This record gives sequence, structure tokens and C-alpha cells, in this order.
Amino acid sequence: MDAAVIERIRTIQSAKHSVLCVGLDPDPARLPPHLLAQYALPDAIRAFQRAIIAATAPFACAFKVNFAFYEALGADGWTLLSEARAQMPADTLAIADAKRGDIGNTARFYARSIFEQLGYEAITVAPYMGRDAVLPFLEHAGTLTFVLARTSNPSGTDLQTLQADGRPIYQQVAHHVAQWNQDAPGQAGLVAGATQPDDVRALRAACPSLPFLIPGVGAQGGDPIAIMDAAQTAEGLVLVNSSRSILYASRGPNFADHAAQQAASLATALGPPTAA
Amino acid sequence: MDAAVIERIRTIQSAKHSVLCVGLDPDPARLPPHLLAQYALPDAIRAFQRAIIAATAPFACAFKVNFAFYEALGADGWTLLSEARAQMPADTLAIADAKRGDIGNTARFYARSIFEQLGYEAITVAPYMGRDAVLPFLEHAGTLTFVLARTSNPSGTDLQTLQADGRPIYQQVAHHVAQWNQDAPGQAGLVAGATQPDDVRALRAACPSLPFLIPGVGAQGGDPIAIMDAAQTAEGLVLVNSSRSILYASRGPNFADHAAQQAASLATALGPPTAA
Repeated sequence: MDAAVIERIRTIQSAKHSVLCVGLDPDPARLPPHLLAQYALPDAIRAFQRAIIAATAPFACAFKVNFAFYEALGADGWTLLSEARAQMPADTLAIADAKRGDIGNTARFYARSIFEQLGYEAITVAPYMGRDAVLPFLEHAGTLTFVLARTSNPSGTDLQTLQADGRPIYQQVAHHVAQWNQDAPGQAGLVAGATQPDDVRALRAACPSLPFLIPGVGAQGGDPIAIMDAAQTAEGLVLVNSSRSILYASRGPNFADHAAQQAASLATALGPPTAA
Repeated sequence: MDAAVIERIRTIQSAKHSVLCVGLDPDPARLPPHLLAQYALPDAIRAFQRAIIAATAPFACAFKVNFAFYEALGADGWTLLSEARAQMPADTLAIADAKRGDIGNTARFYARSIFEQLGYEAITVAPYMGRDAVLPFLEHAGTLTFVLARTSNPSGTDLQTLQADGRPIYQQVAHHVAQWNQDAPGQAGLVAGATQPDDVRALRAACPSLPFLIPGVGAQGGDPIAIMDAAQTAEGLVLVNSSRSILYASRGPNFADHAAQQAASLATALGPPTAA
């Protein structure tokens, strides 16, 4: 019976007047040239993420770290994941965007990796294997697990919008997650893509109190006003992520200032959290 | 137009008279006590996996490394993943059981991580986000990508067996994968759980030529004879995985000999590959 993490997010959002989550997707090909000239690759990313986290934290209620970009660096990437976590200020939520999903015996080790070894507070997981793949994450008190429901990418329709038993698959997922959440209230949420505001509105109607992690604003084209109107209610909080539009706002020497300006601007466009 | 990896598997299977894949799920709590007494944890796993790979390779056409168990060790785990890859003999296929799945921009980095940074030849991926999440893996020539279709765990039924447009979701996935494979013949396959032989038989009927990676024999209870009858044909090759039943056949000082005996016994029970 642990909704502490939800209250923590509400407190952060209220203090910062922001629902913005800043996504860390450090692509070596898009780093500022002066960092690549000065450092070897892991150190260039180290300098980049440190500067981005420090500059954008005043406008962000969360950071979402995209594991693919780190794993492509091997063991160095894993060290950078730990360092990024340590650099996130206490008034931000640390989200591991890892989209893990495996049988229960294996899911327990993924949960241990993310929540204990790396110390993140939230994770994204994939629903295809069902509850066995999700419940081991919910067993970690004080954490939050966002299950993919309706994703922001064009081929999200390959499976998610197929109709089964009178409703789309993404609603079947939401139905399951709401049930699983009953055993761990406040610890499960949904990933709902900003590029699909109509579907996200339907998800909010079906799941009035689950927190939503919403990617797809910025480079992917989701509209901030439309998605906030669809997703945020007094009962249902949202975290709206943008990655590339902030990280790569400029490749110049003052990239961090530009990232901060972009984060501030997007936080304003999204508007403040709704009081619960 | 690259079916070289399929021919490579057929050659290995014929030479070894085996369709067995040995799964590496190194759980610290189940390692032989003498290794844990002798070494710190990463070194205990290092010694364990080296001995298991060497002892079972004569009976295995592939090794499947379960990333969760390594990621729980942090950066040390990533180093062990590289070492395990280097220890696999040339006459085995190196499978990364990582179940990755994300939007295209991100999937490209996961593919780079698995195929280039770590040097594995095959991977498991999750289908929930659709083709964007799979095609970047298929673009790597000479590799094999197994997409989750019907999984071996009890809650596989939460989504996979829902009926949509007249067929279960796992058949919808198979239909998509068969289409995606047309652009990269011989590079896509399916994960089909040994605990569900009837569903696997239906998958084989729908996808006569896709390779199947079949987990769930051994600790999960799948029957070797039933699953081979359902899945293997002259055209459709199979790789049948067992992990715990082999790794933990004994916790004594001669654990590797017991693992080899168990692998040999299971390879015999599964029977030889069918000539193409």
C-alpha cells in the first residue's frame, strides 16, 4: 500500500510548476563538436549529460534515461547510467527507459538491476508476456513501473489498435495494468504516446487514476496542448517527455543554455500540473 | 538477401546431431558453493560460465545468454557478456536473449549494442511496438532476430491468445514477422514456447520456413518430444533452449560434468535435426 512515489511526484510538479520530463538519448553523432574534439567518446557523453542534467533540472520533474544509447557503449555505458542517476537532483524522478519484459524468474533480475543496482526509481516495461513480466517490478516498494500501452511511433498500430473482445489491444493492456495496480496501488502507470491524443484520451477515461508517462512531444511531433487536454486530470497525473528537441537544441559551446531555454519553453507550453 | 546464418545453423546442427541451445542464466543464489567460497561474485560467475560453455559446447548448436542476470551485476555484467561471447566456440550460434523493443531511432542503438559492440549473432525482440522496433535489427546482415510470438510463461495468455480479426495475437505477430522477413530473408524468426505445443504447431503451419527459438523445456516443463513433433520440419528449423535444468544439474565440484551429461541427454531426447 505504497502511493508515496505518486505523492513525491505531485510535490515536485507543484514546486516547479512543471510536468516536463527531460529524456537523455545521447547520440554520439549529435553531440556538440567541441566536446567530441576535447574528449574520447565516453567522456564526451559524460560531460554532455552532466551539463544537460544541471541546466534543465530547474524545469524538469523527471529525467528519463534511454538505455539503448548507453548500452551501445558497453561497460562504459553502464557506468554512465550510474553516474547520470547520481547527478539527478533529489527533486527529480529518475526513470529508466529500458522497456524490459521477460518471464517472472528473469523479470526479478531486471528489477534488481534497475531499482537496486542502478538505483532508478521508475522503469518502462513491455506488456507482451503478461503479468509475470510486470509484477516482479511492482514488488519493489517506492518505485513506479510504466507499462507500454499506446506508443508514439508510427507502427504502434501493427498490434496496439487491433480489436480484441470489443476493444483495442492497448485498452486490454490498460485493463490488465489497472488490475495489477490493485495489489500495489500507486506503483503502476502507462506509457501513452503524445502523437495519439485521441487514444490517450480514451486511456484516461478507462484509467482515471493511473499516472501516464507521455513521450512523443518535440522531434516526434506530438502537440503539447492537445496531449495535456487529453491526458491530465486532477486525479490522473502526467509526465510529458521530450528528448531530442531539448538535448540537441544547439550543438554550439552554449548547448546547455539552449537546452535549458527549450526545457523552460516546453514546460510553459505544457502548463502547470493540475492540483489533486 | 542473406540466408547465410540459416545455412550456418543447419551445418552446425548436422555436425553435432543436436538442436539444443544452452541458456546461460547465472543466478548467484544457485552457483556451486565452492565457487562462491573461492571468488568474489563477478569472478565466480566468470568461472562458472567458462566451465559451462566449455563442457556443454559439444552438445549445443547455440548458447542463449539471458541479459537480466548480467545486468543485475552492472558494468561487471557487461564485461561478462563480452567474455561469454568470446568463449563460445565457432561452431555455436551466439544468441542475446535481451527482448529489446523500442522506436526505430532507439532500436538502431540496441542493434548496434548487441551485434556490433558485443558481437552476438542473434537476438530476441518484443513485438508490441510493431515494425519500427524490429526492422533496425534485420538490417544487420548475417544476423538473426527472433520476435516473441507465443511465450512459454503462464501469463502469455494475457495478450497473446486474445482473438483479433479472427486469429490470436500471436498469429498476428507471426503474420507480420513473415512479411518483414521478405525484405531480409532468413534473418527473422519467432520465439515459440515449448509449454504450448498446440499453439506452436499452429505457428509452424502459418510460418513453414521461419526458424523457431523454443524456450521452456526443462525447468518450465515443456516436453521435448511433443514440441519437436509440433515445431520441426524439413523446411523449418528449430533451436530448443534449456537453461536451469543444465546449469544447475549439480552444485557440486563436478557441476560442469553434470551439466554436460544433462545437455547430452536432452540433445538426444530432442533428436537430430531434420535434413532440409
